[in-house]
Amino acid sequence: MITEPFDAVDVIRTKRDRLELSAGQIDWVIDAYTRGVVAEEQMSALAMAIFLNGMHRSEIQRWTQAMIQSGERLDYTSLGIPTADKHSTGGVGDKITLPLAPLVAAFGVAVPQLSGRGLGHTGGTLDKMEAIPGWRAALSNEEVRAQLASVGAVVCAAGPGLAPADKKLYALRDVTSTVDCIPLIASSIMSKKIAEGTGALVLDVKVGSGAFMKKLDQARELARTMVDLGTDAGVTTVALVTDMATPLGLTAGNGLEVRESVEVLAGGGPADVVDLTVALATEMLAAAGRPAGADDVRAALADGRAMDKWRAMISAQGGDPDAPLPVARATEQILAPADGVLGRLDAYGVGVAAWRLGAGRARKEDPVQLAAGIELHAKPGDPVTAGQPLMTLHTDTPERFPRAYEALDGAWELAAPGTVVTRGPVVIDRII
Amino acid sequence: MITEPFDAVDVIRTKRDRLELSAGQIDWVIDAYTRGVVAEEQMSALAMAIFLNGMHRSEIQRWTQAMIQSGERLDYTSLGIPTADKHSTGGVGDKITLPLAPLVAAFGVAVPQLSGRGLGHTGGTLDKMEAIPGWRAALSNEEVRAQLASVGAVVCAAGPGLAPADKKLYALRDVTSTVDCIPLIASSIMSKKIAEGTGALVLDVKVGSGAFMKKLDQARELARTMVDLGTDAGVTTVALVTDMATPLGLTAGNGLEVRESVEVLAGGGPADVVDLTVALATEMLAAAGRPAGADDVRAALADGRAMDKWRAMISAQGGDPDAPLPVARATEQILAPADGVLGRLDAYGVGVAAWRLGAGRARKEDPVQLAAGIELHAKPGDPVTAGQPLMTLHTDTPERFPRAYEALDGAWELAAPGTVVTRGPVVIDRII
Repeated sequence: MITEPFDAVDVIRTKRDRLELSAGQIDWVIDAYTRGVVAEEQMSALAMAIFLNGMHRSEIQRWTQAMIQSGERLDYTSLGIPTADKHSTGGVGDKITLPLAPLVAAFGVAVPQLSGRGLGHTGGTLDKMEAIPGWRAALSNEEVRAQLASVGAVVCAAGPGLAPADKKLYALRDVTSTVDCIPLIASSIMSKKIAEGTGALVLDVKVGSGAFMKKLDQARELARTMVDLGTDAGVTTVALVTDMATPLGLTAGNGLEVRESVEVLAGGGPADVVDLTVALATEMLAAAGRPAGADDVRAALADGRAMDKWRAMISAQGGDPDAPLPVARATEQILAPADGVLGRLDAYGVGVAAWRLGAGRARKEDPVQLAAGIELHAKPGDPVTAGQPLMTLHTDTPERFPRAYEALDGAWELAAPGTVVTRGPVVIDRII
Repeated sequence: MITEPFDAVDVIRTKRDRLELSAGQIDWVIDAYTRGVVAEEQMSALAMAIFLNGMHRSEIQRWTQAMIQSGERLDYTSLGIPTADKHSTGGVGDKITLPLAPLVAAFGVAVPQLSGRGLGHTGGTLDKMEAIPGWRAALSNEEVRAQLASVGAVVCAAGPGLAPADKKLYALRDVTSTVDCIPLIASSIMSKKIAEGTGALVLDVKVGSGAFMKKLDQARELARTMVDLGTDAGVTTVALVTDMATPLGLTAGNGLEVRESVEVLAGGGPADVVDLTVALATEMLAAAGRPAGADDVRAALADGRAMDKWRAMISAQGGDPDAPLPVARATEQILAPADGVLGRLDAYGVGVAAWRLGAGRARKEDPVQLAAGIELHAKPGDPVTAGQPLMTLHTDTPERFPRAYEALDGAWELAAPGTVVTRGPVVIDRII
């Protein structure tokens, strides 16, 4: 009989009673949970105690380290090229990874992005990429390494060997109302990103109705916690706190967002998507020790350097960059009821509507529709005329339209003609 | 597919966010947990949220009712005799049920006591009764009813049909550090006692080192909560808050406590055991509408009326009231190191020592030693002479002695000869 050095009941009681978990308790509870010695019902009680009583910085750091040590830790230093990655906490229309990864790679910094799938109203990068015919999300560690050396950018699924404790805990938190908790969010994200082996990391912490963090002080706290975790683990880490009150760009939905990303890589695309892509790329290059000016970065979108990397990256994973993207079987439009100015366009409402049209999933195992989603024809501040389309809804299953309309009800407002609508900057704060 | 009216994640979130659970949420979550639709890890997260955020009186009441409704509710009104039961929150040397049940039955009030087994340092009534050769704890509902009619007193195991939700939840709380929580303790106890079908109920809420409640205000709050629950459910309920700083009587251990109980039923026994038995019997008779004076109750112990009921009760369940009780294979004594007065004798230390000698169990499935335990030869305030035995330790497995001595180390103190040690009354408060 193997004697365990700690008892789950004592560890739970420690946090329940607002005491600090010791390093030994944390190392053991994460390891024993991964081994199945700490039961799901014990970990969920501990997660609720952490949710309600919090964790100190030293506890969060140890918790993150223990989750990293539950699996393999990748390392690309032997490739001899600097690496940088970006993680977004999730938003509506957030396709930034697609133009960003090849753009950074165009400057000689490799991007090893291990991504996830969407759940709820925010999209997932892998779901978007799978709209590209032939593209393959699952790569072995060896394939990732080879592609980083040859192309310089990889977007693929995180393998089962990376932070397995986090995978178990994430699924558990989802069914026990213990998701929205900064220590658990920060340690979950950072354990995966540190284990992934990137040398530098830029965090895009979104705030607003379409983000998990609705308030600026929460977003700043999450950003601060994650930057500390990365720095403590030897990863150069910077966070931008960015606006998610309104959708990013003019599309929300998998194939629609790929189309818009390709427009950006071709030197066009909506200004907010371009601006955020350039801001994040500039941060990643600086963090990786290969600083470049914002003008030069912007030029790499205009002159095809980033597009070349995109095509190489897609091809390397079996995708056809020239193949037509999927088209939805049905579309409907919402028209402007009068002349005016679009006053407000709520990210959450648009995100839920896109989800209901089929772009997202309610459960992990659900499929997504690659062509479903919403195209926006106006953003806040844009003048519109009566009868002009404000948005186009796309779906393969038209019976979903009514529930999407419900989500959009009240999500946008038309102001009187001539109204000046001021939008704040996309990047709200920078935390280092 | 059956659609559930609520979602466990929402119910957990409600309590997590310090909101009140609705009656519908409570009814559903208890029922769905019993059916296995709410998973163990979801109920444990909810239990931790209840532990940390509490429940209002109306929530506790509904929670208790929902647990009762998860199983059968017994009813003895058709027997045409009043019924009363007693529940103790558990202590060291607490054998009161043994003399109490036959004593109350001697006055024409039937006692339908469905009991449990011991866990940790406090003993369980069924474990004690099983020291009587031949005695059988498992009775069918029909056997209980028949014995109530013929003898007037039953002590037996609660069947699986009684509050099954509580049985599941109790086992879950034990492994998730959610035991010591007044709303969950009160609803657990009261759901079983109300479902058991007693007309009147007297609660013995223990306070002190040997009890679950270490502080008087906690014990009063638990008593108040349980009295309210009983009253709300139509059961005449009274609580006595009683001292558990020192063990009750002069024995702790299954067979040893049966022996002491028989002494009380024979008109002898330690004063504190007799006093508490008489106080509780008087309360039970009054609550059942058959009031009797304390002197008359005390007389029923002296004149054999209670002993006759005891013998009938034991015989009815296959036990031999004349058979010798089990004797331990090994005994050791702790001797007074000097002349003096026993100053302090800690219930918790004695309870843990008796447990380690084999009288109790660490896990539900462990067996107990029927002869193991501790005999006390002095109580606080008693003068002792150098070399006189202070206690005798009994066990079938002498390798257990050292761990028992460890538990007793510091659990007693010898004061200078002539020191006056004042002990407070056994009954500290009465809550109605």
